[in-house]
Amino acid sequence: MKAPAAAGSGAEERLARAALTRVVEPGDEHSGRWLREHGPVELMERLRAGERLDAPPAGPGKRRIEGYRTRARAAHPERDLDAMTVLGGRFVCPGDPEWPTQLDDLGDRRPVGLWLRGGADLRIWALRSVAVVGARACTPYGAHVAGSLGSGLAERGWVVVSGAAHGVDGAAHRGALASGGATVAVLACGVDVAYPRAHTGLIGRIAEQGLVVAELPPGAHPTRGRFVLRNRVIAALTRGTVVVEAELRSGSLVTARAAERLGRCTMGVPGPVTSGLSAGVHELLRADAVLVTDADEVVEVVGDIGELAPVRRGPVLARDLLGPVASGILEVFPAQGRLDGREIALRSGTAPDEALGRLYELQSLGFVERQGSGWELTKGGRQPSNSRRGGA
Amino acid sequence: MKAPAAAGSGAEERLARAALTRVVEPGDEHSGRWLREHGPVELMERLRAGERLDAPPAGPGKRRIEGYRTRARAAHPERDLDAMTVLGGRFVCPGDPEWPTQLDDLGDRRPVGLWLRGGADLRIWALRSVAVVGARACTPYGAHVAGSLGSGLAERGWVVVSGAAHGVDGAAHRGALASGGATVAVLACGVDVAYPRAHTGLIGRIAEQGLVVAELPPGAHPTRGRFVLRNRVIAALTRGTVVVEAELRSGSLVTARAAERLGRCTMGVPGPVTSGLSAGVHELLRADAVLVTDADEVVEVVGDIGELAPVRRGPVLARDLLGPVASGILEVFPAQGRLDGREIALRSGTAPDEALGRLYELQSLGFVERQGSGWELTKGGRQPSNSRRGGA
Repeated sequence: MKAPAAAGSGAEERLARAALTRVVEPGDEHSGRWLREHGPVELMERLRAGERLDAPPAGPGKRRIEGYRTRARAAHPERDLDAMTVLGGRFVCPGDPEWPTQLDDLGDRRPVGLWLRGGADLRIWALRSVAVVGARACTPYGAHVAGSLGSGLAERGWVVVSGAAHGVDGAAHRGALASGGATVAVLACGVDVAYPRAHTGLIGRIAEQGLVVAELPPGAHPTRGRFVLRNRVIAALTRGTVVVEAELRSGSLVTARAAERLGRCTMGVPGPVTSGLSAGVHELLRADAVLVTDADEVVEVVGDIGELAPVRRGPVLARDLLGPVASGILEVFPAQGRLDGREIALRSGTAPDEALGRLYELQSLGFVERQGSGWELTKGGRQPSNSRRGGA
Repeated sequence: MKAPAAAGSGAEERLARAALTRVVEPGDEHSGRWLREHGPVELMERLRAGERLDAPPAGPGKRRIEGYRTRARAAHPERDLDAMTVLGGRFVCPGDPEWPTQLDDLGDRRPVGLWLRGGADLRIWALRSVAVVGARACTPYGAHVAGSLGSGLAERGWVVVSGAAHGVDGAAHRGALASGGATVAVLACGVDVAYPRAHTGLIGRIAEQGLVVAELPPGAHPTRGRFVLRNRVIAALTRGTVVVEAELRSGSLVTARAAERLGRCTMGVPGPVTSGLSAGVHELLRADAVLVTDADEVVEVVGDIGELAPVRRGPVLARDLLGPVASGILEVFPAQGRLDGREIALRSGTAPDEALGRLYELQSLGFVERQGSGWELTKGGRQPSNSRRGGA
């Protein structure tokens, strides 16, 4: 027997996890269980060697394992990690400081690891994040509402998470970007694959100003099943999911129900009852979801979780424990008054996108607060040093 | 001391109540208490004689009593009752067989009596009724939804109650009328006053095919306060209130909240969050109201009250206790199969509007059921006679 999963967190385990992202399909509970039982290193070895695993008795599950074995023998994780480095991206595993621990709520359906592009810290951003999802073929009404929510949430210092798809997803991301806010795209393909192709520019912009996240390794393409399973990551990563427009039996409802099962808030924006694209949302609202009509109402719902809202309590980390860039940014703030993001970047000598990432981190840690288009110190952030220590 | 209110239910009390509808303002709790304490006959005598009543200490309440005394001396109830007879209408008091006892839930704010035009029995119709209310200046969307709900509810055998106003009210009445259904207009003026004037034809048609109801005596004109207080009658009369479009702080929300306080179901039809005319409805839905998108969903909510849904249980009255017209109508039904309202009128030799009124009564009593555009016997209605006796 090898050591269990938690023990080997070194380079070997990291390499095995990177390989596994190319081998197992996202959200496959069987491989999740094997991973828990054998750890990533032994699991990869077993798959490569074609050894017995406690597999589903027959049917598609059995065929899938055969596929996993073939993929395992073809996997070259070093090559994937190198490719990601060239792209300026990284690979984050459970146990890493940047791993968003709320994903652990997915149990055996937790991602093996996450491939990331972008300068921000995913774990800290996810603490104050909301998913805005909905129909690809949305109406102009849906696009308008998604865009307003995206920019409204960004203006209130919330990170907007979505799937970079056509329609509602794209509008939500654009709304957040347009008001200089933070946004995370969770893709159903590799972080270097622009899907849909028409969103190449948008995804590139998100990688600069926000974060692009995927369970799948570089170069991987989306499949129907991967879209559906990607939704569980969006649901788990965020504190709540808002559905803007959705037909009955649509993928966005899957995200919303996944969020509900995970104990996250589910919200819906109503629309005309004469619109089939609002029928799915109305169904959701007739069940347990909360009706929301603007960003304020969304924040009211997700902001209620006191434990995850350090801004109201002041910093949760001592000021001298901050990294040099974050410290540098905090230095430029006046004791009173508001600064705009561009001005902060200029004064601290930081690139604007980098500055934005750090500002959201500083906000999650309780030092600063976004107010409309500007940023200001919180009451606690005005103290030159803070003696309370602890994680956010 | 005169006899208490409940005792004198004869012609004298009836005349006093008719007079009081011209004297006291609808929904005035003070006069409601006097009425309870002194009975209508003594109350009218005291008002006419200018005798002391336990009045509010000062302010508008005191001035109002002076007004009541002046009006009491000028009241000619015989003239009003005669005028109503000429119009083919009637006056219904608490204690009368046609009095809808659910109005008693209003306590001291219960109407003194109701002036009616139309052939149907208000008490029986009200048992299976739903209010559809909303903005006067509604959007085309609101008018469309109100019309669909009106006709959809009528097709499912429900009586549509509203206020005959412009916009949502009018559309709901028209929807019910257009699908040959039952509808009740509760006015904030006399039943012979067409307000709004543009609805003269509509109100006339409702008086023929449905019922026109008012607390105020013939010739009385609406005031702002009367509109608001009329809403409590709509709320109390029905099993539930659906708000279609309403601005924040609108009169329709008053009706909905009155319904809620009375333990009735409150429902709202969502709309675009970009529409100020849906903002009031969304506010209601964010509180306790149930989101509904069509007539089926409304029926699902209001039809749940088992006690008031005799159709599912079969007749609650023996067949030989029915009046001659209702009996005649029941005779023409085949044991199996559906008849259309016009055909039923023809075969029973009854005028179509009269037949419709009786059909809704027979439905409330559990003998027949409306199915789409036609009517058929219930399972219980097929028995030649029914031994169970009791009120609906």
